[in-house]
Amino acid sequence: MPPSSFKDPFDVALSRRARWAGDAPIASVLMARTLAQPELVSLAAGFVDQETLPVTPVAEALAALLESHEGARAALQYGTTAGYLPLREAIVERLLAADRVARHEVALSVEQVVLTAGSNQLLHLVLESLLDPGDVVLCGAPGYFVILGTLANLGARAVGVATDDEGIVPEALEEEFSRRREAGDLGRVKAVYAVSDFDNPTGATLPAERRAALVEIVRRWSRDRKLYLIEDAAYRELRYYGDDLPSIRSHDPRGEHVVLAGTFSKAFSPGIRVGWGILPEELVAPVMSQKGNIDFGSPNFNQHIMATVLERSLLDVHLTALRAAYRRKIDAVLEAAEAHLRAVAGVNWIRPTGGLYVWVRLPEGLDAGLDGPLFDRAVEEGVLYVPGHYCYPPEGEPMARNALRLSFGIPSCEAIRRGVAALARAISASLEGTA
Amino acid sequence: MPPSSFKDPFDVALSRRARWAGDAPIASVLMARTLAQPELVSLAAGFVDQETLPVTPVAEALAALLESHEGARAALQYGTTAGYLPLREAIVERLLAADRVARHEVALSVEQVVLTAGSNQLLHLVLESLLDPGDVVLCGAPGYFVILGTLANLGARAVGVATDDEGIVPEALEEEFSRRREAGDLGRVKAVYAVSDFDNPTGATLPAERRAALVEIVRRWSRDRKLYLIEDAAYRELRYYGDDLPSIRSHDPRGEHVVLAGTFSKAFSPGIRVGWGILPEELVAPVMSQKGNIDFGSPNFNQHIMATVLERSLLDVHLTALRAAYRRKIDAVLEAAEAHLRAVAGVNWIRPTGGLYVWVRLPEGLDAGLDGPLFDRAVEEGVLYVPGHYCYPPEGEPMARNALRLSFGIPSCEAIRRGVAALARAISASLEGTA
Repeated sequence: MPPSSFKDPFDVALSRRARWAGDAPIASVLMARTLAQPELVSLAAGFVDQETLPVTPVAEALAALLESHEGARAALQYGTTAGYLPLREAIVERLLAADRVARHEVALSVEQVVLTAGSNQLLHLVLESLLDPGDVVLCGAPGYFVILGTLANLGARAVGVATDDEGIVPEALEEEFSRRREAGDLGRVKAVYAVSDFDNPTGATLPAERRAALVEIVRRWSRDRKLYLIEDAAYRELRYYGDDLPSIRSHDPRGEHVVLAGTFSKAFSPGIRVGWGILPEELVAPVMSQKGNIDFGSPNFNQHIMATVLERSLLDVHLTALRAAYRRKIDAVLEAAEAHLRAVAGVNWIRPTGGLYVWVRLPEGLDAGLDGPLFDRAVEEGVLYVPGHYCYPPEGEPMARNALRLSFGIPSCEAIRRGVAALARAISASLEGTA
Repeated sequence: MPPSSFKDPFDVALSRRARWAGDAPIASVLMARTLAQPELVSLAAGFVDQETLPVTPVAEALAALLESHEGARAALQYGTTAGYLPLREAIVERLLAADRVARHEVALSVEQVVLTAGSNQLLHLVLESLLDPGDVVLCGAPGYFVILGTLANLGARAVGVATDDEGIVPEALEEEFSRRREAGDLGRVKAVYAVSDFDNPTGATLPAERRAALVEIVRRWSRDRKLYLIEDAAYRELRYYGDDLPSIRSHDPRGEHVVLAGTFSKAFSPGIRVGWGILPEELVAPVMSQKGNIDFGSPNFNQHIMATVLERSLLDVHLTALRAAYRRKIDAVLEAAEAHLRAVAGVNWIRPTGGLYVWVRLPEGLDAGLDGPLFDRAVEEGVLYVPGHYCYPPEGEPMARNALRLSFGIPSCEAIRRGVAALARAISASLEGTA
């Protein structure tokens, strides 16, 4: 190898976007702290259960897909930027059925559906189409930390709105709009972001009346310019108790304000990674244009697989088994919490009816962060969690450092019980240490 | 459906990015002009041959992948942002073998490899990491029109550098750097973009000495700041005549300046859509960060398929058949050009030895654009092409309107012959019309 022709290190001039993108993702920060601890129960990673991944349904769908050379070739060729039409149609049908409305009751055309690499890419494309640097998105606090990174990367501002056990508090959202007006930057607010079901990280589900209230607030504050309500329904199908609720979009039957993001990653397979969005009409062209410039269409093969899975009703069969498996896990985590955490004064948690997460609140003053007393002790005891402060937007509702997120998707029920018991020991020890 | 609650249409405040993204893609513009002509031979669409799509190799790879439940589950789970390690390793091995260098001769670690949704996403991620609005990328003129859209979407400037039958002319690149210095915006130039083999749209391949010269020029003009040479090798494996040439990156053995973009879309399947990039070390973190914010990793399942395809040597077997099929098509298009176009005074074309495109130059003054005399006449005669002016950057080397691109990937040899004959009739008729 020839020697470098350069004497001095270069000033690498990265773009603003690159500089805004921030540090290493939380996952790698946590991993770096735990390399020496192979026996750790990870209640941190947001992955899905490995055991229930749909090997058999995928094999069946692939056999059907590859049966005819013509069908197989269509799947192996380029697709379109918007995605495979039969899958987009199936998504519309599924949504209407889940929302229990007839086609004529809502404004919803297959032209408004775009298929993406997971719902995250949909969120990115919509935000990219709406936000200039300095623009504002109102988000639940705590809320989904990945979208906080996406917003930072765009140079946009995420402003936190208070949440409770039922998600974003409508009155708090109303107040935040008023505050923005008083602060003189109401014109920079472009959207509200809300997870409808089993929020990440809180597990909270917005009740029907809150869904309607959020739409109404966004509609009312759309004065000089239309505001959007971005509904992230990634977890909707992971309900283990109670009845499914119609989407936030169903409260906006003309589809004027709500951008609905969904995905088959949680309900079926994140490795196949097909997400989708339903867009208000005027956003279709801009979002498609962004997508055209990024990858001109997500993998066609995967869209054909998912279309075949839906056509053969393999998803619903799979979901029945998946929900049963996750129901055992959510029972395990909630029972272990009752058994081990209930006795610790000042500790409480939100009881979700679905999803993959449990949000645990700790006594005032107990810092769950990497530099607080709890984190390293928890790792020593054998459990890893996500410190709650990562889930707070940098502005608005103040950050709580005495909270953490537990994920129960990956570990077995036995590991979950062990992990929660370890967490309880670590909390008790930390409290003694600080007392 | 309730009536709209809005009296007036909204001012939808899209982002600058959305406004920069421009109009409908060329494909839809062309399609809209040809809906009434179902018998048309399309020598416009850049898709790959449908008949040779790898149904059998994919079925074999999938059978192997799904054989063990454990392996299948790993493929159906989330992957990493950088992509599946065994595939990234296989890509490094393949590149070293193709470039005929030993591992110790070049600085190349698997950490520098990122897997993307086609090579286009890699180009997007790199450009997003490097360019602020107003920054400049020097591109061949004519050059790949999709990257011109990507640059416009970023608010960046594409400046055209003269090309000839062997691609970008090094002296023209040198002159353009001098001109940028004189114009006072040399500091805004961040990269040079070059397609190494069988360029889109010209079919031109850069000879070895030009590859070395381009690297040397980029190195020399890296004064205050490192400049990058983005090598797009999307077509490298589609060589039908002559010997493969070592990559442009092989002329930059420390991997300091060259970003190498590759893909399995052309060589294997665009529906599976796995592309890749090899990055200079300091760009790994920024590019990964952008990717993390867009989709945190391309579909893992597809990466496992491609890894299995390579592991079982299915790609090379497939490439042998693929090249034989495309060799028949390139022979058909070049023979038809000799038969029908050679006699038309002022018409000439570049003879490619691979790829999917033939660039045809028309007599001075004959406008091949949608509003010129040729386009509609060609459609009437039964052939569709891409007007050459779409392939010119908005600045730099002046646009030629008397040129067009023919794609021979999709149509049969018989259709290619029919299409070229129709084009010749249309050109002759247009010339008579204007004479």
